[in-house]
Amino acid sequence: MKVDGIAYRSVWVNPDDGWSVHIFDQTKLPWTLDILRLTTRDEGAHAIKSMQTRGAPLIGAVAAYALCLALRADASSEAMERDAALLNATRPTAVNLRWALDRMLTRLRNTAPEQRVAVAYAEAALIADEDAAQNEAIGRHGLPLIEAAVKPGRRVNVLTHCNAGWLATVDWGTALAPIYAAANAGVDLHVWVDETRPRNQGAALTAWELGKHGVSHTVVADNAGGHLMQHGDVDLVIVGTDRVTRTGDVANKIGTYLKALAAKDNGVPFWVALPSTTIDWNVVDGVAEIPIEERSPAEVTDMTGQLADGSIATMRIVSAGSPAANPAFDVTPARLVTGLITERGRCDASAAGLLGLFPERA
Amino acid sequence: MKVDGIAYRSVWVNPDDGWSVHIFDQTKLPWTLDILRLTTRDEGAHAIKSMQTRGAPLIGAVAAYALCLALRADASSEAMERDAALLNATRPTAVNLRWALDRMLTRLRNTAPEQRVAVAYAEAALIADEDAAQNEAIGRHGLPLIEAAVKPGRRVNVLTHCNAGWLATVDWGTALAPIYAAANAGVDLHVWVDETRPRNQGAALTAWELGKHGVSHTVVADNAGGHLMQHGDVDLVIVGTDRVTRTGDVANKIGTYLKALAAKDNGVPFWVALPSTTIDWNVVDGVAEIPIEERSPAEVTDMTGQLADGSIATMRIVSAGSPAANPAFDVTPARLVTGLITERGRCDASAAGLLGLFPERA
Repeated sequence: MKVDGIAYRSVWVNPDDGWSVHIFDQTKLPWTLDILRLTTRDEGAHAIKSMQTRGAPLIGAVAAYALCLALRADASSEAMERDAALLNATRPTAVNLRWALDRMLTRLRNTAPEQRVAVAYAEAALIADEDAAQNEAIGRHGLPLIEAAVKPGRRVNVLTHCNAGWLATVDWGTALAPIYAAANAGVDLHVWVDETRPRNQGAALTAWELGKHGVSHTVVADNAGGHLMQHGDVDLVIVGTDRVTRTGDVANKIGTYLKALAAKDNGVPFWVALPSTTIDWNVVDGVAEIPIEERSPAEVTDMTGQLADGSIATMRIVSAGSPAANPAFDVTPARLVTGLITERGRCDASAAGLLGLFPERA
Repeated sequence: MKVDGIAYRSVWVNPDDGWSVHIFDQTKLPWTLDILRLTTRDEGAHAIKSMQTRGAPLIGAVAAYALCLALRADASSEAMERDAALLNATRPTAVNLRWALDRMLTRLRNTAPEQRVAVAYAEAALIADEDAAQNEAIGRHGLPLIEAAVKPGRRVNVLTHCNAGWLATVDWGTALAPIYAAANAGVDLHVWVDETRPRNQGAALTAWELGKHGVSHTVVADNAGGHLMQHGDVDLVIVGTDRVTRTGDVANKIGTYLKALAAKDNGVPFWVALPSTTIDWNVVDGVAEIPIEERSPAEVTDMTGQLADGSIATMRIVSAGSPAANPAFDVTPARLVTGLITERGRCDASAAGLLGLFPERA
């Protein structure tokens, strides 16, 4: 999507050297647009682990490129397996990470070591291109849901949680793809953007993205969504996901489950947008089986922002000496999900629904 | 309760001059313990409006004392009615504000102007003493709920939202009164403290209070409570309230409704602690009838905290140019509330339950 009129993807190979990999440092957004250049496996791993790059689909593409960088240093089978395992361990929740690395290994294990670098870059580029195309398709399939909510003389209000925009994917985004499609189609649209504590990806990234694209939006505290729904101010909720079980349970940023409960209680449709790479066909019970990443308490106790003089600072916001806990994701049971929006179309959040769109998984 | 071994109330008359009124500047907590001296009606009104003093029961007591200060300047009936109306308009949601001012006016309208100042101070002192005694009783009536949750070899986990501690009342608190009672009784207790965006009263005030009293606690993002309940890590929820309808609907800090939904979905008891002054016997449908205060968007877009050098700073945390909305309260329907804890005992969140405890309101 565009930033100040220039079209970007969120990961790309340097066109001059043909091998180094660029990403935005998303920990510096929305304050500074800082483009990083990754040149080694460890720089790639660090970028994923430190959330300089984040969002389930984007992590997969960056991990694929990080494996390319690793192969430039050592393309032996032993090193390749070791490096893929190391990259796979950078984030525990995102299934796309494993999916992308498995796809790379499947392609590369049957490739002679001296050809692996070139084949790896071609495969990583395919992963990136396919992700962008998938998300554009998600936007097409989600657009009718927003169009159906149009009432004469009244804007359509969509609520979203966290950032599932183009910054979280290679392009378009997942939850935001239908929103961009609707905005581009001229729908009178307004987006409630959950702040998304503790990392504030909504207030920082989703608000930034929507602002840059000219989509009307308002940031609210994560606490506000239930109240807005009680008073008819939300027509539908669209969120992304880090992992969907074969039964339609949805792991996503912590707090998603609370919004799904409020949507159910108020008859507000609750949709989840995802590329099929996010589906974990091996998991049946999301709450019981999906491991939830416990991140640093410092993300809760400390907050980063911009001081009046424009400088970026981090400050303590919790009473001195009080400990904090930081579960980073929760699981929304399928019973609370109105439906899923995938690159192949929409379906119920159920095994039957998913298998209807993906019969090859039966 | 105690701070560094010294017993405090959250509002008191200066013992030296006998008339000026002291409060903590709660906007500076937990960073600085700053005691304010109020000497005029307008200083009292400002303290309430700017949330230097906050919490529904405490606002009532401070408003009563602010009317005393107003009467020192002009004890005529005309001025008294005008000043009471001005004080009543400082915060729209808290019913205690109106209750305390009505009680003062009822007492003072039949008092000769020259006697009003002395009578007003006596009545304000009664309001403060009664609030402290009521909250101690709430603690006694709530304690059995926590004791009943004790399982051998396992701490009891209570989740609370916002600050309904002694800082929000004259002493003891409402939601925290049973927690202090349990801690004092030696129950192995742990409190999950919701951060409570956007003003962070949980992370700032509740964590500070509990830490000063030596109660084990952990601060979590508001988003985390549903996940904790899904995994059996919350035994009961206790929150305070700004207004309870005669039918048991509960207006409280924004986000309370989301926790009540999660508690219901996971079979976790959800209790609301309140002095009966918080009950609005005139309101039947909380969601439809209770006006919700819309506070400044700056509370969402800007955050105050402590920099590494110890100084207090405010910074922008939302993408530049993005607007914010800030509804400050929500209403939890009675159907989601397990029960109410009042100074007279516990009851169902229903008209029948409340009238059982307060038959004089039938």
